[in-house]
Amino acid sequence: MDSNCPPVCILDFEKYAYSTLPRNALDYYRSGADHQQTLLDNRAAFQRYRLRPRVLRDVRKRDLSASILGERVSMPIGVAPTAMQRMAHPDGECANARAAESMETIFTLSTIATSSIEEVARAAPKSIKWFQVYIYKDRSMTHDLVIRAKQAGFKALVLTVDAPHFGRRLADVRNKFILPPHLRMANFNVDSKAAKQAGVSAGGSGISEYVMSMFDPSVTWKDLKWLSSISSLPIIVKGILTAEDAEEALHYNVAAILVSNHGARQVDGVPATIDVLSEVVKTVKGRCEVYLDGGITNGTDVFKALALGAKMVFVGRPMIWGLAYGGEAGARKVLQILHDEFSSTMALMGTDSFALSCMLIMQILIRKVVI
Amino acid sequence: MDSNCPPVCILDFEKYAYSTLPRNALDYYRSGADHQQTLLDNRAAFQRYRLRPRVLRDVRKRDLSASILGERVSMPIGVAPTAMQRMAHPDGECANARAAESMETIFTLSTIATSSIEEVARAAPKSIKWFQVYIYKDRSMTHDLVIRAKQAGFKALVLTVDAPHFGRRLADVRNKFILPPHLRMANFNVDSKAAKQAGVSAGGSGISEYVMSMFDPSVTWKDLKWLSSISSLPIIVKGILTAEDAEEALHYNVAAILVSNHGARQVDGVPATIDVLSEVVKTVKGRCEVYLDGGITNGTDVFKALALGAKMVFVGRPMIWGLAYGGEAGARKVLQILHDEFSSTMALMGTDSFALSCMLIMQILIRKVVI
Amino acid sequence: MDSNCPPVCILDFEKYAYSTLPRNALDYYRSGADHQQTLLDNRAAFQRYRLRPRVLRDVRKRDLSASILGERVSMPIGVAPTAMQRMAHPDGECANARAAESMETIFTLSTIATSSIEEVARAAPKSIKWFQVYIYKDRSMTHDLVIRAKQAGFKALVLTVDAPHFGRRLADVRNKFILPPHLRMANFNVDSKAAKQAGVSAGGSGISEYVMSMFDPSVTWKDLKWLSSISSLPIIVKGILTAEDAEEALHYNVAAILVSNHGARQVDGVPATIDVLSEVVKTVKGRCEVYLDGGITNGTDVFKALALGAKMVFVGRPMIWGLAYGGEAGARKVLQILHDEFSSTMALMGTDSFALSCMLIMQILIRKVVI
Amino acid sequence: MDSNCPPVCILDFEKYAYSTLPRNALDYYRSGADHQQTLLDNRAAFQRYRLRPRVLRDVRKRDLSASILGERVSMPIGVAPTAMQRMAHPDGECANARAAESMETIFTLSTIATSSIEEVARAAPKSIKWFQVYIYKDRSMTHDLVIRAKQAGFKALVLTVDAPHFGRRLADVRNKFILPPHLRMANFNVDSKAAKQAGVSAGGSGISEYVMSMFDPSVTWKDLKWLSSISSLPIIVKGILTAEDAEEALHYNVAAILVSNHGARQVDGVPATIDVLSEVVKTVKGRCEVYLDGGITNGTDVFKALALGAKMVFVGRPMIWGLAYGGEAGARKVLQILHDEFSSTMALMGTDSFALSCMLIMQILIRKVVI
Ligand SMILES: Cc1cc2nc3c(=O)[nH]c(=O)nc-3n(C[C@H](O)[C@H](O)[C@H](O)COP(=O)(O)O)c2cc1C
Ligand SMILES: Cc1cc2nc3c(=O)[nH]c(=O)nc-3n(C[C@H](O)[C@H](O)[C@H](O)COP(=O)(O)O)c2cc1C
Ligand SMILES: Cc1cc2nc3c(=O)[nH]c(=O)nc-3n(C[C@H](O)[C@H](O)[C@H](O)COP(=O)(O)O)c2cc1C
Ligand SMILES: Cc1cc2nc3c(=O)[nH]c(=O)nc-3n(C[C@H](O)[C@H](O)[C@H](O)COP(=O)(O)O)c2cc1C
Repeated sequence: MDSNCPPVCILDFEKYAYSTLPRNALDYYRSGADHQQTLLDNRAAFQRYRLRPRVLRDVRKRDLSASILGERVSMPIGVAPTAMQRMAHPDGECANARAAESMETIFTLSTIATSSIEEVARAAPKSIKWFQVYIYKDRSMTHDLVIRAKQAGFKALVLTVDAPHFGRRLADVRNKFILPPHLRMANFNVDSKAAKQAGVSAGGSGISEYVMSMFDPSVTWKDLKWLSSISSLPIIVKGILTAEDAEEALHYNVAAILVSNHGARQVDGVPATIDVLSEVVKTVKGRCEVYLDGGITNGTDVFKALALGAKMVFVGRPMIWGLAYGGEAGARKVLQILHDEFSSTMALMGTDSFALSCMLIMQILIRKVVI
Repeated sequence: MDSNCPPVCILDFEKYAYSTLPRNALDYYRSGADHQQTLLDNRAAFQRYRLRPRVLRDVRKRDLSASILGERVSMPIGVAPTAMQRMAHPDGECANARAAESMETIFTLSTIATSSIEEVARAAPKSIKWFQVYIYKDRSMTHDLVIRAKQAGFKALVLTVDAPHFGRRLADVRNKFILPPHLRMANFNVDSKAAKQAGVSAGGSGISEYVMSMFDPSVTWKDLKWLSSISSLPIIVKGILTAEDAEEALHYNVAAILVSNHGARQVDGVPATIDVLSEVVKTVKGRCEVYLDGGITNGTDVFKALALGAKMVFVGRPMIWGLAYGGEAGARKVLQILHDEFSSTMALMGTDSFALSCMLIMQILIRKVVI
Repeated sequence: MDSNCPPVCILDFEKYAYSTLPRNALDYYRSGADHQQTLLDNRAAFQRYRLRPRVLRDVRKRDLSASILGERVSMPIGVAPTAMQRMAHPDGECANARAAESMETIFTLSTIATSSIEEVARAAPKSIKWFQVYIYKDRSMTHDLVIRAKQAGFKALVLTVDAPHFGRRLADVRNKFILPPHLRMANFNVDSKAAKQAGVSAGGSGISEYVMSMFDPSVTWKDLKWLSSISSLPIIVKGILTAEDAEEALHYNVAAILVSNHGARQVDGVPATIDVLSEVVKTVKGRCEVYLDGGITNGTDVFKALALGAKMVFVGRPMIWGLAYGGEAGARKVLQILHDEFSSTMALMGTDSFALSCMLIMQILIRKVVI
Repeated sequence: MDSNCPPVCILDFEKYAYSTLPRNALDYYRSGADHQQTLLDNRAAFQRYRLRPRVLRDVRKRDLSASILGERVSMPIGVAPTAMQRMAHPDGECANARAAESMETIFTLSTIATSSIEEVARAAPKSIKWFQVYIYKDRSMTHDLVIRAKQAGFKALVLTVDAPHFGRRLADVRNKFILPPHLRMANFNVDSKAAKQAGVSAGGSGISEYVMSMFDPSVTWKDLKWLSSISSLPIIVKGILTAEDAEEALHYNVAAILVSNHGARQVDGVPATIDVLSEVVKTVKGRCEVYLDGGITNGTDVFKALALGAKMVFVGRPMIWGLAYGGEAGARKVLQILHDEFSSTMALMGTDSFALSCMLIMQILIRKVVI
């Protein structure tokens, strides 16, 4: 990308962010766990699926919208929860939420955000907002957040289940990564340990030490039950990678399953999300909604996930790179490009809508290859 | 390739063109859609097929000729339609057509050529010419072209079915690619929008904007019916990649199917054409002729396509590189090299003719491998 | 790794050692046989196994310990026998043994060590020590070592069966590798040929010439019988790569099988150890313990080996790099990092213990992929 | 390889030759056809076969010898026919034959050698010599050569069946390769066209033009019959790559089949020879001897070919590199290294002899992998 050329694809935003963000923040955002095999695979895996386009179908009008937990979104591409977005741009989560709002899609706020539930609600009142939940050892902390989210108009709870422990991200350990002093965990009381601890390193990754000391590694399916007992919001479990756990989740009446490996940040060597999507979709058999995140950087990636049975996808890092490029406008442009690429892919695939299509029809559009 | 060494294979022409064509034109010619996975795969896929040579057969006399829609060609290698060839050489399509004429093979003229139907007919009166059709929103435009093509002696219509929308070619978007001012869409009235629009960019790829505003994205199989109702010329559908669409095409009595992914320029992630050829051939079962284009740069590629059931192959970019190297003579040399390589491959494979060979026999000559 | 940044993973130690060890020693330590295909594969193969994490299980308390031939180790990661460790650090085998001691795991001493059985026993009296046996042409030499090992408190004999001949390690041949003059084969009489020969080269690899002249290439299963007749210590056969030999070993009542290809140092082109583990485990069906070494550099590698049925793994080179980095402390840090990574992997896999888990359950956690 | 370090493996000789031979000769020797996919694959394919070593077998005495067409060779590694060896060293074919003689193995002389049948016979009277036959349009030329070979004590005829046409080797075309003026096709009369033509280029590869004008492209199995009618020497057909042609050859009572793709010099895209060996061996079922050449650079390659059913292997380029390095001594060293590597591989594989082993037993030692 020439410096004077505006970004035309998601990788352009990424390149820009790589060359402008401070090392500390950049490394935190981009890293995967350990030697990052899964980080690469999350993207590379999409290339193993070939699209089978159908021709001579009327694709003038294409309906990209979807109905997600009863709410209409203009496109099946939403914003995944990522922590501490103000390191990428002063407006952080608020800018991101506004971008989602203007694109009429879902924004998910992380528990460990640098903007609070209420700030985000004020910044993007009309957007569909979901709140991502981590379960603290001190259950009352989680309890309060959940109540506040509901009050602030958030529409669903996203329970992250793949983080009983914090993944080893080597760059963070090397950098002794901490939240910069001018930022804080905005969902917590200024003086609480939960707010301050992330700004401290005992020798390794500060954020890792934060999580280890605060989050509860003994969380089980019973805590999911507890969560649904304290809130009427629908619950999405985020971080399922196996048919076995999908079955278990259904047992607990979750509203949706988000197939995710946490952006390859937890344990290296797990499958790319797109590679396990079918397994989960086939187990769920329509009993709840299924979404996917991980490695999406392109409209064809979105199409592939939907053709394999996901109702919606979410993007994490691309939104950070958008923020870094231009705050709200940058984040919006990321969503807009994905929208346009997805729309164009639909046209060229001879698909005018995913709304009516059943899985069987969809799977004609795709084939996994072994090269 | 040393600068003083004449080209000895297609890649030599490509290298030459890469180092001499203006960036704007070069990028337009070489690009594939999005991140160009399929562009690479179109070529790489040929390497996944292994030739099984038969020995001690008399191969002194080899018959390379073929009968295509009733016309005799000296070899089963023709010229695919590519737009705007005068950017590569002042003689553009006319030079290319003359090259095809002297090699006694088929030349296909694009709707959006920089030489008109009549100019090409005058330049290469004895060649077998086909006309490639895009369906304009304003059907009368397409209607007129089809009538003129027939009058000018063109022998068939090639309906391109994989372009209801224009593929995202990132370099063109970055370059804000437009047709250079001294050239024009020669098949249209000088002052018409259809002639001028390609020289304008509203901020992105000018050619993309042209296509989006002029071509009809609502085209369906019914329009194929319409096309055959307005012309007695045989119709080849270009851009089929699935058994399902091949079956559909047969239903509409097409004369031939051209298995093509438009040089990987439409939607990234579709299969390499050689990888779907068998699927189409097996569906068609001889009910119409089947051709292939995409990624052919070598005589062994031609052999592989024929062994897998194609009656003929077409080359797009190689002809552009030939033009760039030396106008008509360059284009002719490209065809000559492919001819010689194919002839040599036949000899070394123990094959003296494809004319009599049935598919079963041919498929002994090839085997797909998973490495 | 910046020079001022302490190592955070095994590869950091490796990089450090690569840049600091003298070429002669470094090449000896790192080389594999011939063109080192298997050396690369030993590591790469682990990446072909994907982890399938289970979520929402209580993983606060994780039990990493294992019971190995009746002895309790704090983690299923031990130290493989590697020759001549004093080239990496003056404290050599003694430092390594102390590191194992402080991590409460097994240390294996090579026959051709630069520290003697008795020195190591004194240095690390409380550690669990195993003695690795090579069978000398002069059986009395082996006999004496075995007796001394038992007297010094070693708990098992590891009979290396993959070295009837010495693997061609090209760098050693080029370097005419010999043991540096200030070091010696410490298990042998100062003046014996067995002690001195390794310091001499007749033109190629000195160590290779040593082995060729001293070790017996005619060793068979009968010698295993002989070995068990002269010592009551349990015998582990090290270097089994096939189901057939595993079956044979069981026939001779071995206590355990160590699936190993000698760090890819014997014959190039053999499988990565992780790729044959299942074959051996399925043959053994619990009739003896099964361990693995080769290519382990990460906590996830350990997890994968255990999920595929190994009771314990051993590391060779990583310990050398640890020694090179900081003697005993460096070696200990290597073990500590592997411990922590393995512990973290267990947490993120939803596994609190391997003790109770049967193979069936474990194999749910892993799947081999063909990419 | 440091310049002052003697070669320790075949690749060292290759590197040396690459840096010292004149470009014209080097390119002729090293090139494969077209884009050299098969050239790479000939070597790479060996890596797809994994060795399964057996342990604790007495391998002190290993018998490498074999009985080939009734003659005893000291090892199953012989010299393949390669043309014009005096470009690599003034002693050319004579040096090579002497090297084979001193290693007690087979030397094959090419029809288009730069040393004559009689010169070679004089140089290496005690070696087992085979004569490689090309069939000239003028049958009397071939007839004479065959008679002379028998008279000179050659023991078999190797009929090359994969060269009815000359493969396109791009470097030779670029270099307009000709035999240097001081050398000549030594098997022909000084003034004959057959001797002189190779020193002339009409614009492309001179050797290619030579072959095209002299060799007969209409050769069939009948000519094999003719060949056996004019000589009592056993006939080996060289260049079979399919089960079908192997069956055909058996029909004509050949003494042996040499699975070969002519060093990947004829048509690109054919399989690596090791990949089709099994197919041929399974068809032949012991009805004649089967050999292999192509890509062998290592003792493990030899072992793999034998384990898959070849009785012997031949090396082409390695001998040229040996000649380039040091004439007869260099060529001998190449054979010696392959001998030693093969011997060492046998030891480490637990194999003391191939003589008795039946194919079934052997195939336990190897397994093809898809990575
Ligand atoms: C910098 C960063 C921070 C993240 N923080 C959280 C978080 O706080 N909570 C959570 O559930 N997931 C978190 N994730 C995971 C994302 O929600 C999502 O699963 C992942 O980013 C998707 O992959 P992608 O980045 O390739 O789109 C984070 C990911 C990144 C990259
Ligand atoms: C620069 C360029 C312009 C093209 N223009 C057209 C066109 O106008 N109409 C059409 O049907 N196909 C068009 N194609 C697709 C070609 O007809 C053909 O499918 C493709 O080039 C074959 O692949 P190859 O370039 O690898 O040989 C174009 C391709 C290229 C590279
Ligand atoms: C430098 C070196 C020396 C070795 N010496 C011995 C030895 O004396 N005896 C033995 O049984 N194995 C020996 N081995 C093999 C190791 O015990 C072990 O199988 C191997 O190192 C495991 O692979 P890793 O290095 O990838 O962990 C040696 C390995 C290396 C790298
Ligand atoms: C430079 C060169 C010249 C050759 N000349 C002949 C020849 O004259 N006749 C023949 O039958 N094969 C010829 N061959 C093929 C060899 O006999 C043999 O099949 C091939 O070299 C084996 O592959 P390798 O070079 O990888 O060992 C030639 C090969 C090379 C590399």
